[in-house]
Amino acid sequence: MDNAALWQRYQDWLYYDQNLGFYLDVSRMRFDDAFVEKMRNKFAKAFRDMEALEGGAIANPDEDRMVGHYWLRDPDLAPTSELKQEIIHALEKVETFASKVHSGEIHPPDAEKFTDILSIGIGGSALGPQFVAQALVPVNPPLNIHFSDNTDPTGIDKTIAKIGDRLKTTLVVVISKSGGTPETRNGMLEAKAAFEARNLNFSARAVAITGYDSKLENIAKSDRWLATFPMHDWVGGRTSELSVVGLLDAALQGINLRELLEGAKAMDATTRRHDLKTNPAALLALSWYYAGNGKGDKDMVVLPYKDSLLLFSRYLQQLVMESLGKEKDLDGNIVHQGIAVYGNKGSTDQHAYVQQLREGVPNFFITFIEVLHDREGTSIEVEPGVTSGDYLSGLLQGTRQAIYENQRDSITVTIPEVNPRMVGALIALYERAVTLYASLININAYHQPGVEAGKKAAASVLALQNKVVDALKRSTKPLALVEIADNIDAIAKIEAIYKIVRHLHSNHRGVQIEGNFAVPSSLKISLQ
Amino acid sequence: MDNAALWQRYQDWLYYDQNLGFYLDVSRMRFDDAFVEKMRNKFAKAFRDMEALEGGAIANPDEDRMVGHYWLRDPDLAPTSELKQEIIHALEKVETFASKVHSGEIHPPDAEKFTDILSIGIGGSALGPQFVAQALVPVNPPLNIHFSDNTDPTGIDKTIAKIGDRLKTTLVVVISKSGGTPETRNGMLEAKAAFEARNLNFSARAVAITGYDSKLENIAKSDRWLATFPMHDWVGGRTSELSVVGLLDAALQGINLRELLEGAKAMDATTRRHDLKTNPAALLALSWYYAGNGKGDKDMVVLPYKDSLLLFSRYLQQLVMESLGKEKDLDGNIVHQGIAVYGNKGSTDQHAYVQQLREGVPNFFITFIEVLHDREGTSIEVEPGVTSGDYLSGLLQGTRQAIYENQRDSITVTIPEVNPRMVGALIALYERAVTLYASLININAYHQPGVEAGKKAAASVLALQNKVVDALKRSTKPLALVEIADNIDAIAKIEAIYKIVRHLHSNHRGVQIEGNFAVPSSLKISLQ
Repeated sequence: MDNAALWQRYQDWLYYDQNLGFYLDVSRMRFDDAFVEKMRNKFAKAFRDMEALEGGAIANPDEDRMVGHYWLRDPDLAPTSELKQEIIHALEKVETFASKVHSGEIHPPDAEKFTDILSIGIGGSALGPQFVAQALVPVNPPLNIHFSDNTDPTGIDKTIAKIGDRLKTTLVVVISKSGGTPETRNGMLEAKAAFEARNLNFSARAVAITGYDSKLENIAKSDRWLATFPMHDWVGGRTSELSVVGLLDAALQGINLRELLEGAKAMDATTRRHDLKTNPAALLALSWYYAGNGKGDKDMVVLPYKDSLLLFSRYLQQLVMESLGKEKDLDGNIVHQGIAVYGNKGSTDQHAYVQQLREGVPNFFITFIEVLHDREGTSIEVEPGVTSGDYLSGLLQGTRQAIYENQRDSITVTIPEVNPRMVGALIALYERAVTLYASLININAYHQPGVEAGKKAAASVLALQNKVVDALKRSTKPLALVEIADNIDAIAKIEAIYKIVRHLHSNHRGVQIEGNFAVPSSLKISLQ
Repeated sequence: MDNAALWQRYQDWLYYDQNLGFYLDVSRMRFDDAFVEKMRNKFAKAFRDMEALEGGAIANPDEDRMVGHYWLRDPDLAPTSELKQEIIHALEKVETFASKVHSGEIHPPDAEKFTDILSIGIGGSALGPQFVAQALVPVNPPLNIHFSDNTDPTGIDKTIAKIGDRLKTTLVVVISKSGGTPETRNGMLEAKAAFEARNLNFSARAVAITGYDSKLENIAKSDRWLATFPMHDWVGGRTSELSVVGLLDAALQGINLRELLEGAKAMDATTRRHDLKTNPAALLALSWYYAGNGKGDKDMVVLPYKDSLLLFSRYLQQLVMESLGKEKDLDGNIVHQGIAVYGNKGSTDQHAYVQQLREGVPNFFITFIEVLHDREGTSIEVEPGVTSGDYLSGLLQGTRQAIYENQRDSITVTIPEVNPRMVGALIALYERAVTLYASLININAYHQPGVEAGKKAAASVLALQNKVVDALKRSTKPLALVEIADNIDAIAKIEAIYKIVRHLHSNHRGVQIEGNFAVPSSLKISLQ
């Protein structure tokens, strides 16, 4: 396609939202009119599905749940007045709590104000708050946030050590729908132990965000934590950033919640249109389908040219991959769907893997995210007439052009600046694009059966560990791996037994190993 | 394969290095003996290539350069005594400098000691230092590091603001081989302006790591910077972590350089073996080749189960993708090679995209990184007999098993703990695996022609910007895009012109735009 035709295509497909100042350009996805025509019926169905979902249909049949994250930013849409009041009340509760923390009306024992937040959660209870914190938190926020999003003992220790003496003025936010997610439960227990080791009352500094009558809610109530906040069962983890899950951390850090929600609401409105060309989420879904033949044949590389959006790709990795990465479609056919997502930021990544994107395996399409506003205040010139921001802009343009010349497709999202309103809009845009794309490929975007499988497998390893330790306790002499396995009737699990004793041995748990470590069958294991 | 056969396969293929306490398990890559047999000749050639490279052959024919990063940790191997002395001298210079900074012998004007480092570099001059800092820096290091790795004005402003009043005791490390990399050059100019705006002498706080007689070296000398350190032309950016590039930042933060180098040297020695089964880098290269048919058909997902290794996947993304992502092989055939790399950390990612890995598109293989040692000191029990670290270990095992049951392959790297020696060993392991794999697929792993193309494209956008501004200056009336393009004889570049004026308009650069922003052809542009 020559430059004149490309420019015409750019203008024909350009989506611009005057209200948000938001642009979407899909002109460098090389689909043709015949493809768009072919997709019309699929989109007609996707738009109908979207309406049903927003109206409160059971969009997650496996878990018999409604999918209501869209109501969070426009409570008038909630299917019942009870739900509407629940949403409004939760938001007010968050704002009131944050404002009392800021003013010092709510404060830690023996200090005037909280200074830090330790936010404990994983997956949907971590990635949204992390992304929003990096994107929007001012340099000197009212509280400094720290995240605990794993069950890694060293990681927890480092976070606690980094907080240091300010632990006594740290507000702990524990986020778990059920209270049963092991990483979060462990993070909470470790944090509690760390507070108690310093003679600090944990409950007087802890709040819970959790489901009704969950394990965590019961702990929070019986231990008289500072507060509990609700986690709605019609909001999935990966779409919970604009629920209390994301909003409490954001409000505590001084981020304007109303603007976040307002941006999402505005984007929701535009992406509700039953028209491909004027619905930016539909344009994204169309582009994804084109890129990967509706089967995820191409990876989605996300490159925001702005440091503060570094975590957006990680946020999208969860949103897109956990929603779309499914074995079966809604009719029960084996489909192995999904789209792999990765990326960091431009132009930094141009000095890393863009070499491969330009010249190597053509197994991806890029989404560039352009931010028009360079900085507050004026810029120095780094060359006559040229600023650092001009370079950033030029590098984005140059890379887009260079990959296009090598037959690699790209989408460009352009926003005026990184502010709460635009972050809300970006979150809403991608939530809707995922919803529409899931309809196009006929899958349930709202469950995650594979995550359950991993948890079960882990639980069975831990149960096995207890049996191994018992067998070692009972034995009067060192045992070979095969003997341990025989003793507990678990010969099929000998490899897991080996890993268990190797790990216990490395952690002063009383397990001795003799023999040649290169030859597992030679090892003799005993308990001190 | 039943469990007994799997366990046998595990033991047959297990690689264990007693000296390093390092394990590599490729048993869950489902290659068979016939495949291994078929690869023997390719490996024989790869081992010969490796010897030639280490002996000083021109392994980067395009740039007519030797490839010498292996000599950095064993200077006795350098092909000449001059090179050997150069390496030893550079290391001593780094250690001496760091120790004088720590003692206060080298200090900022009007203060006893430096407190912070601002490390300015991009790509190979940032990812290694960032990875090593996250993996190894103690909680209270002698100096706190901050990175500037982009030309994003807001990003630079935030970094400077975060340093705050400590800017007066901040040591600036500028890392650029040529001094011509625009992002680094801009970062340096912005930092200098920020220091000068606070009446702080920049040169008295700046050091350069750069090539002989480069632009940057000339600036550092004429402005009398605190020091300059050499960047060898036989070390590429992505393999420069164990050169001065990585070592200076590491030493300043109190990381033991000798252990880093010693771990790399030990791993280099084992990966020099001309034998597949006892050479862990060869086992990795074999596995990569098997996974992707030697064509990168599968993405490499890197999942370290340890918070401090979070950036390892980003480090590997550059090392692997920039080295292997090439259009042509060494004979000039078009091959579009590479392997896409992404990942963050376990078990956190199990609550994000592992859903797709387990059930969705099977377009990847996983590398699990297991760390045996959980933490310093003892652990609380989160359940009877079970610690947080047991959970981390169980979740790794569980996920490995769950994905295997769904016919997804994985490699497991096991290290005793995250310390300088093991980080050095991991860096060396993957450097060698890339070298061997590049031989298997017959490509030059040491150039990056695609990166140059992006830079050139960006430079042409900036040149166009100056012409556009000139055209607007000359005009007495607002111009349509097509008129600007005509005036500067650049009608083929009208889309780039549109992007340029849109960007200038958003940044108070005197560019006015009237018209309907949704219809670019309607816009009238003028200069105030």
